[in-house]
Amino acid sequence: MSQKKISKLNPPSTIGIIGGGQLGRMLVLDAKRMGYNVIVFDPKPNSPAGQVADEQITAVYGDLNALRNLARKTDVITYEFEHIDVDLLTLLEYEGYTIYPSAKTLRLIQNKFVQKSMLNNIGIKVPEFYLINTLKELRDVFYKFGQKAILKTCRDGYDGKGNLVLNDINKLEENYQIFRGLEIMAEEFIHFTKEVSIIVAKNHDDIVLYPIAENFHENSILINSLIPANISVEIEKQIHIMSKKIVEELDDFGIFCIEFFIDSDSNVLVNEIAPRPHNSGHYTIEGCVSSQFEQHIRIITGMPLGSPKLRLPCAMYNILGNEHVAGTYSVSGVDAILNIKDCHFHLYGKLESKHLKKIGHITVLDDSVGKANHQAKIALSKIKID
Amino acid sequence: MSQKKISKLNPPSTIGIIGGGQLGRMLVLDAKRMGYNVIVFDPKPNSPAGQVADEQITAVYGDLNALRNLARKTDVITYEFEHIDVDLLTLLEYEGYTIYPSAKTLRLIQNKFVQKSMLNNIGIKVPEFYLINTLKELRDVFYKFGQKAILKTCRDGYDGKGNLVLNDINKLEENYQIFRGLEIMAEEFIHFTKEVSIIVAKNHDDIVLYPIAENFHENSILINSLIPANISVEIEKQIHIMSKKIVEELDDFGIFCIEFFIDSDSNVLVNEIAPRPHNSGHYTIEGCVSSQFEQHIRIITGMPLGSPKLRLPCAMYNILGNEHVAGTYSVSGVDAILNIKDCHFHLYGKLESKHLKKIGHITVLDDSVGKANHQAKIALSKIKID
Repeated sequence: MSQKKISKLNPPSTIGIIGGGQLGRMLVLDAKRMGYNVIVFDPKPNSPAGQVADEQITAVYGDLNALRNLARKTDVITYEFEHIDVDLLTLLEYEGYTIYPSAKTLRLIQNKFVQKSMLNNIGIKVPEFYLINTLKELRDVFYKFGQKAILKTCRDGYDGKGNLVLNDINKLEENYQIFRGLEIMAEEFIHFTKEVSIIVAKNHDDIVLYPIAENFHENSILINSLIPANISVEIEKQIHIMSKKIVEELDDFGIFCIEFFIDSDSNVLVNEIAPRPHNSGHYTIEGCVSSQFEQHIRIITGMPLGSPKLRLPCAMYNILGNEHVAGTYSVSGVDAILNIKDCHFHLYGKLESKHLKKIGHITVLDDSVGKANHQAKIALSKIKID
Repeated sequence: MSQKKISKLNPPSTIGIIGGGQLGRMLVLDAKRMGYNVIVFDPKPNSPAGQVADEQITAVYGDLNALRNLARKTDVITYEFEHIDVDLLTLLEYEGYTIYPSAKTLRLIQNKFVQKSMLNNIGIKVPEFYLINTLKELRDVFYKFGQKAILKTCRDGYDGKGNLVLNDINKLEENYQIFRGLEIMAEEFIHFTKEVSIIVAKNHDDIVLYPIAENFHENSILINSLIPANISVEIEKQIHIMSKKIVEELDDFGIFCIEFFIDSDSNVLVNEIAPRPHNSGHYTIEGCVSSQFEQHIRIITGMPLGSPKLRLPCAMYNILGNEHVAGTYSVSGVDAILNIKDCHFHLYGKLESKHLKKIGHITVLDDSVGKANHQAKIALSKIKID
């Protein structure tokens, strides 16, 4: 495989994590279990990850001196979200600090146009896409796509932010103006029948593929995942081949989540790649032998990969803030959730809630996906955010 | 069941834990996952539990003001070890603070003579035992027991500290002098064929019993546990009946570990009770649906009990400090451990090691206890403490 080799860091080496949200928190919990020290970098004090880390450096993400301070105090750096100034990471690498995945990979993934161009180049099917520089270009593409398309900012989108569905020629100019000044692209609207994703772990020796999750979104926010996905063996095989090809092309180290659309003709298209643990992989905490978080810690410390084996079928549901609460909140109904067999409750310690904000999740394990999903729906209906 | 009722504490309520060792650390990791805030009380800064908690109060265990500060800042208090001044806890309870298990239970368990007398009173078989006030009394008991006995301090013993095997009449006076000034008792020496233990969880609604662990000690220190224990259904039934009877008599809330001797005539005798999660229950983290730590957090927050169901047979081995290292240490061979399938590695973040100090543990899950034990032995042989 790769010529590069990751330095072996035995505990208690120190890991730096840029970003103090829930993904960082779950990384810290596994890193601490394994005896590592962890320093979290986040602009808000007492972040979800900072609460469980040995230390939090509180500074804005663009603060080079603070980032350098993190680098000096740690043996390896990783991140839990993509929207970091990659030039600063490149500089830190140049200064000799180690970051996984590398700034090069992050740079490629950060720009969706570049990401999709790379996928195209290596023969991976993606929705048709065009960089848009003028309203005229957008109009041409819109007609080409049969008057239905997705308009996206090339950078900084997440959970539906930075995405617009175009379906009305009369609103095209208005839509175009929304992202004025930003680099944008238009994409073919895929009438998918399923959305699925896979967590892929790569170190210098090997690649392991986790079971494929079937994902359900509302308003572009992940509502729930069912594992294993209800797909044919043929499609599973295709996804495995595509996933390996992608991470081999990236030639980097870490956890990668690849999201796919499956259309009614059983075409499999890549939607996007995240260079980090992912919401659709939360089920791996209780559902798999080694979770995506433990796996990421293993990789960046130069340890061998763990097993992605599924113990039992799983259903994962996000706990989202509702429209009635903005600010501090309380949670009730936890007792009803904890009454459900093999239901695992996670709350991220976020200080404030808002509409559709991810504040926790539950994972239910059962003999079948159907049973797990049934129990998880009951569990989710019990929780109340006030 | 009990007339008492535990107040329901939804997250983010705050839990106080007296003692910042590995048991506290594993309690914190589960409490944080569930969204609780945790304050740890320990005399040493940056304790294993304090590293992952929201806050550590650093003070000696006898500091009433510091303990009261913990009580004021938290919604419920628990502890991870028994050797706390129970008068101070009684005072805090009197002041209206909630402690689980209660000071009354801790007081009873702290004194082994009182603990065993209670067991005797409710008809639970224990090794024969006598309070010793004079050397003459010790000599009489020694002869009565056939010139082999155990001399114990009634309080403050753990991991073999405060225990002496008596087998030489000529050394009896010398042995007697070792514990001079302390309350002591002499116990019949049990030629056991097996040592087993069970984790019992009790809240105000119910009791659940975890699978029974078979334990192997050297120099009174737990080396490893195999789960489920290789015992007859008949003995398992006896242990279940005895365990329920004991926790019903205690009439308190929390995790209790009960250790048993089984002799060559298949007699089952209670060795001792711990009112807290226990080393022999570490396997429950990966091995069971709800771990002993999550279960303890559920109980003290008034939540329903989780399932103690075993996912797969387990072998747990402690990682102990060796005689060559006293002070700071490094750990190597972690990569070899992590290469073993379904082997889970825990390191407690202790700042210093010493001979036989518990600094971590591993748990291996497999299809059979034999296979798990085989793999765990290989794993343990790989780790090096320098």
